[in-house]
Amino acid sequence: MFSPAFDDLVQRLRVLPGVGPKSAQRMALHLLSRNRHGGLDLAHALNHAMHSIQSCVMCRSLSEKEVCNICASNDRDQHLLCVVESPADVIAIEQSGSFKGRYFVLGGHLSPLDGIGPEEIGIPLLLSRINHEEISEVILATNATVEGQATAHYIIEASKNLPIKVTRIAQGVPQGGELEYVDSHTLSQALQYRLSVR
Amino acid sequence: MFSPAFDDLVQRLRVLPGVGPKSAQRMALHLLSRNRHGGLDLAHALNHAMHSIQSCVMCRSLSEKEVCNICASNDRDQHLLCVVESPADVIAIEQSGSFKGRYFVLGGHLSPLDGIGPEEIGIPLLLSRINHEEISEVILATNATVEGQATAHYIIEASKNLPIKVTRIAQGVPQGGELEYVDSHTLSQALQYRLSVR
Ligand SMILES: [Zn+2]
Ligand SMILES: [Zn+2]
Repeated sequence: MFSPAFDDLVQRLRVLPGVGPKSAQRMALHLLSRNRHGGLDLAHALNHAMHSIQSCVMCRSLSEKEVCNICASNDRDQHLLCVVESPADVIAIEQSGSFKGRYFVLGGHLSPLDGIGPEEIGIPLLLSRINHEEISEVILATNATVEGQATAHYIIEASKNLPIKVTRIAQGVPQGGELEYVDSHTLSQALQYRLSVR
Repeated sequence: MFSPAFDDLVQRLRVLPGVGPKSAQRMALHLLSRNRHGGLDLAHALNHAMHSIQSCVMCRSLSEKEVCNICASNDRDQHLLCVVESPADVIAIEQSGSFKGRYFVLGGHLSPLDGIGPEEIGIPLLLSRINHEEISEVILATNATVEGQATAHYIIEASKNLPIKVTRIAQGVPQGGELEYVDSHTLSQALQYRLSVR
């Protein structure tokens, strides 16, 4: 519209998830009209993050150092390893404050049609860690989707001869969930895995 | 969470309008996990736009050149000048395809409490252009808000001795507007300014 640099900025902003043409334009106008410093700071932060953040060599989560803070920490229980699909899942579990072990980030799930097999999601590294470290329990916290379940089952099979406990996070009605709005698959899981309370 | 560079990126993404902590985190994870090239391209586009886009010396809209494409064009009617609050309004009117004159961008509206007076919104430049160019009509297309109306009225007063026609864009029920959902002020304007049809 106003110049090639403007059109280019609007176009590039659309790499951000959830940003369509209208909101990209609104963002570009906002930065140019009201917050050029903020725009330059964002450019710098993007550059720095894209160049400095890599994968932790132990857990494959995001880290600026070769080994991430969680893997390097002495305060984490080294016997517990929680397998998740993505770094976002690490954040979600950390924010729940309910896990003190360490993680392994697959970086996706098995998807043969897309050429994503065990190698691509780091299964060899996971098995090698189970073999060489003092891990006593692997918690499979992949998503409760068809792909997440299939990936969890693959790991259960691949680790069946190893002397560890393998668990899967519970599925059921979410906190605050009203039964009439919970999907029937979730309800049937919640009934099947009901717990004895007295 | 993962590193200072990650936290900094999430923080900086929040300069974008409509981006809260949750979506900033989602954006950062998306770029780092799936589109680092896109992240670097965005950083470059931001840098380039913030440095190269300035205000057109004639109309105060956004431009990479001293005089913007619209002001420099010979295809635009030099007798018509449309006064708007922001560059976003220029885009909206251009997209409507219903105006072939030129623009003047105030860059806001009068707001005495915030220290925004006539100087800040370029009124001296506007009056000087009306005096020195062959402008025969000034169309006031400021917003239909209290501030936009007050700003339009200020320009009507300030230009009352100049030999030009001054018009205000029409207010009324928007295209497709269902009367039961239109606010009563708009309805009363639409009734007051009703047009004779036969
Ligand atoms: Zn790690
Ligand atoms: Zn211009």
